Parts: sequence; C-alpha cells; structure tokens
Amino acid sequence: MTILVTGAGGFIGRELLSVLAETEEQVIAIDQNLAFIPDHPGLLCVEADLGDGETLAELFDGSVDRIVHLAAVPGGAAEADPAASQRVNIVATLNLLNLAAAQGNVPRVVYASTIAVLGDHLPDAGVNDETPLRPVMIYGMHKAMIETAMAGLSRRGVIDGISLRLPGIVARPPGPSGLKSAFMSDLFYALEQEQAYTLPVSPDARVWIMSVAQCVRNLVHALGCDSQLAPESRVATLPAIWVSMEELVQELASSTGNSPELVQYAPDSGLEAAFGAQPSLETPTAEALGMQHDGNLRALVANALATIRRSR
Amino acid sequence: MTILVTGAGGFIGRELLSVLAETEEQVIAIDQNLAFIPDHPGLLCVEADLGDGETLAELFDGSVDRIVHLAAVPGGAAEADPAASQRVNIVATLNLLNLAAAQGNVPRVVYASTIAVLGDHLPDAGVNDETPLRPVMIYGMHKAMIETAMAGLSRRGVIDGISLRLPGIVARPPGPSGLKSAFMSDLFYALEQEQAYTLPVSPDARVWIMSVAQCVRNLVHALGCDSQLAPESRVATLPAIWVSMEELVQELASSTGNSPELVQYAPDSGLEAAFGAQPSLETPTAEALGMQHDGNLRALVANALATIRRSR
Repeated sequence: MTILVTGAGGFIGRELLSVLAETEEQVIAIDQNLAFIPDHPGLLCVEADLGDGETLAELFDGSVDRIVHLAAVPGGAAEADPAASQRVNIVATLNLLNLAAAQGNVPRVVYASTIAVLGDHLPDAGVNDETPLRPVMIYGMHKAMIETAMAGLSRRGVIDGISLRLPGIVARPPGPSGLKSAFMSDLFYALEQEQAYTLPVSPDARVWIMSVAQCVRNLVHALGCDSQLAPESRVATLPAIWVSMEELVQELASSTGNSPELVQYAPDSGLEAAFGAQPSLETPTAEALGMQHDGNLRALVANALATIRRSR
Repeated sequence: MTILVTGAGGFIGRELLSVLAETEEQVIAIDQNLAFIPDHPGLLCVEADLGDGETLAELFDGSVDRIVHLAAVPGGAAEADPAASQRVNIVATLNLLNLAAAQGNVPRVVYASTIAVLGDHLPDAGVNDETPLRPVMIYGMHKAMIETAMAGLSRRGVIDGISLRLPGIVARPPGPSGLKSAFMSDLFYALEQEQAYTLPVSPDARVWIMSVAQCVRNLVHALGCDSQLAPESRVATLPAIWVSMEELVQELASSTGNSPELVQYAPDSGLEAAFGAQPSLETPTAEALGMQHDGNLRALVANALATIRRSR
C-alpha cells in the first residue's frame, strides 16, 4: 500500500504526514520544499514542482494505491496570477489524475476541493449539498472544474475519486499563505501569543471552520472509506463549525486566558462578502461518508491551539 | 464589430462563415486549413493551430467583440487521444477565453458545448435544463469543465459568455470526422445518393438532431441575444427534433424519392447506448433566449438535404 501526498510540505500536508508516520504505510511526499519534514521509515520525499511531468510520471510505477492531492495555488495567489492557477490547479492536476488513471489499479484519489466553488453570494437560507456552484474567484472556478474531472474519471472506472470541499482550516502559521482567508488563522496566533490583532471583518461575520487536526482525520478517513456511499458526483462538502467572529474571539480568549479586548474590527467589504457571510451549512453527504467536524467550538479551539503549541 | 470564429474550416464553421459573408461584419477565421473558404470583403483567414498561443494572442488587439468557439477535438478522437483533447478542448480553450477576457471589452463568447456533457445514462423520464451532468466520454467531461469556466468568467464580468449544448448536427460530409455519431449524417448522404447503408443502431434508436443551417441560425442569434435572459450558468441545451431512426429513414426516403429498404440495421450496443437512447427533451432556457429547432422532421430533412446539394 503506497500513499502519494502532493503539497506535502504545506500546512495540511505536514500534519497529514505526521499522522501517516504513525502507520505502517509507504508514503511518497511531493512538494517543492520538504527539507523540514521529519524522516520516518517508509517515507520517500520528492522535492519537485507538480508541473514537472517527468518526475511525476516516475512516481507512478503501478504501486500507488492512494493519493491525497493537496498541492494548489491558493485563493489569493490564484486571483493575483490566474496563469499560475491554470498551470497548477488545472493542467498539473489533470496530468496527475491521468497518471493515476493510467496505472490501471483504480487508485483512490482524495482531492482537496474548497467551499470557494460555491461562490460569494451564498443563499441566506443556508448551504446544503444541492446548492448550485457559482464560483467567482479563479481558485473556486478551477477547483470546480477539477471536481468535474474527478467525477468523470471515477465514472469511467479509472480512478476511485472523492472530492472534499474544505472549509476554513485553522490555524495556519502566520505569513504569506496566498489565502485571502488567512485572517481566521492569524487570529488564533495573536490571541495565543497575547498580541493585539485587527480583524478585517465584523464581529458578526460568520464563517465555517475546522481544525487542521480534524481536517487530516477526514482526509485519512477518505483514503479508506466506502466510495459506494459517495454520490455520483463524488463530491462532499465537509461539515464545519459555524461561528461568528465574536463567538470565536470569546472562546479563544477564554481558552488562552487572554483578553478579547486584544481584538479590534476594521471590516473590509470585499473580505466580509467573500468570507464573512457564510450562512448555515448542512452536509449530509459528507456525514454519510463518515466525515465529521470538530464537535463543537471549544473542541475546535483546543485542537487548533494544540497544533500551534506542538509546532513550536 | 469583429467576429472571431475558431474551427472555421470545420463543418459548422464553414456554414457559419457563408452566413456571415452576407453581412457587413468583419470576420477573423482561424483553423488549420482554410484554403477552401471563399474569400469575401471583411474576412481575414488565419491558418493556425488553436494551440499556437502566440498567433492567437496577436488576433486579440482589443477589437474582437464577438467570438464563436467551434474548434475542438471531437468525441471519438478525444476518446482515442485524451491528451489531444486536454490540449485543445481544455488548455487552448482556456487560453482563448483568457485572451478574450484580457481585451477588457467584455466580448460575447458563444461556446459550442455538447449534449455529451449529460452522459450516457439519460433519465427515461426525459432530459430538461435541470438534468444533472454525468459525462462519461472525455469529450463531454472536458466540455463540461469549460462550461464552468465560461460561467465563472461571465460572473467575473470579463466575458459575456453563452454555452450552447449542440445535439447531433446533420449532415456532416462523409469521412473521418472523429465523431462517434457520424452515422446520423452518413445516413443522409446514403439515401440522397441512393446508396445502401447499414446503421449501427436499431430502428427504435431515438436521437436529438438539428440541421447545420438551423445550428448556424442559433449561433448567429447567440452572438446578439440578450444575455440577461441567460441563466446564471450561462448554459442552454439547444432544442432539437427528437426522432427514431426508422422515422428518419422514412422521411429521408420520402423526401429523396428513394427506397427505405436501402437501409439495414446492425446495432452496436455501445453506439446504441451512447447515441440511441435519447429520451424526450425540454429546453425552456434555450427557447427563452430565442433558440429554435428546425420546426419539424420534414423541415429538418429539407434543410439538411439543401446543404448537401449546395455543397456539391
């Protein structure tokens, strides 16, 4: 059993590798920089760009059974450089899927899609598994296109695909992530380190979030779950904790023992519209597959803070 | 006003050019072979592969107002060479859309999509504008992906796109077209020329068809119609005449004065499933946009035979 993880050096990829290190699985990790990944038996690190078709092709020797495709040009970076998004999020990703399919062993492919496929103007009455896709960002548009390819190739019986739409995953390390929603993560680091922070959305902004630990549990579950339970579209929007920024600040303050007064609000209308207007969320498809959110806000905050503290 | 037509040397492209030649419009035609296109004032022929990004970029000087994108690796050819489909039907097409968007003049883009986006197993109760997409062929999968890009770029306000899903268009000239549904057209030529023909589907096989003349009327209408009437998805499945092969053979025999006994049936289960099991079709979205089918079977046959005879 060999698991290929793309984007293995990224925020989610590193957490996934640390969980897979506890198993007996053979793991191939690919990313541009893997120098900081702890070595473990069964781990093969391949430092390469996903667009390097020759290197990628060499990895598919017929023994890759499972793939977690995390590598992507993220939202803000894709918006700034649509050509880069097209190169990685479309072309390199299709090449990856084609190589996976050509092996002939119908590998399980878990694709990290995004709630950005839904678009900006979400229905006030809430989002569910029937909500039509209206992506506005290049990132969401390209991810929606690959969802179609994942379903088509699964229908053809050449891969066994599952696309998971990830909500906001917290707490990403501060710094340039290329994600427009980075403020959600920055808030965790600020309160954990007792630093003042100005949120670019209002106290009433409501978001869907999940801890990276819970996200990784869902990815690992998706590697082995019964795809007979997946819908014909092979897509599931992950469940998430639905919370206002004010509630999140209160819980973070309470969990860290720091003051909620550290946080100021200076709403940016664009960010508020794109990330602060998430309505209620129903995810029966993902739940039927066995996917879960963090349980409640307190558990989510504890999970996220534990990852921050462990990473020091 | 400048209209760019890709795939201008193809079956539909040539008919479209002959209609546009009757107007005052400036037309840029691009295809690999345009030697046989009649010259007319206002026509610029560019012999190039759509994948030639530099040549394509030179055409977009800011004055291209309208685009009809017909160029594609068609169904059977895409199935035989998925990499070629990816190169033309995805990558070159996205490049075309990006160039159109970069002009800044929000050009109308009419994209020739296909009923293949619906997939093979169509609901017995009929297809309508809400039928989910379940493409199985590479061609349909790639066309569905571009429908998503067309809608996304229109939502972003950088193009004014309309995707039209074409049914079987008759009657293509005999010869290798790369289309698995070529038998529908070959039947017209056989009966018109009083030749024996064996259909690879049963007499009861039911198909959605449209004459190329009617198809071109719809494409020209789509160049100027009010996109406010288009749905948020910017997609319309074209109306079509729904007919059994037996009915079509009878009408062709009657219209040509030849015997229906010229036609034998040797059904191929794959072709019967993919092209002979089309249920009833409702197309209110296209009708609201002003799109029409041929009117009735007799008119469709007359339109198709007129094009065959004119092309001699």
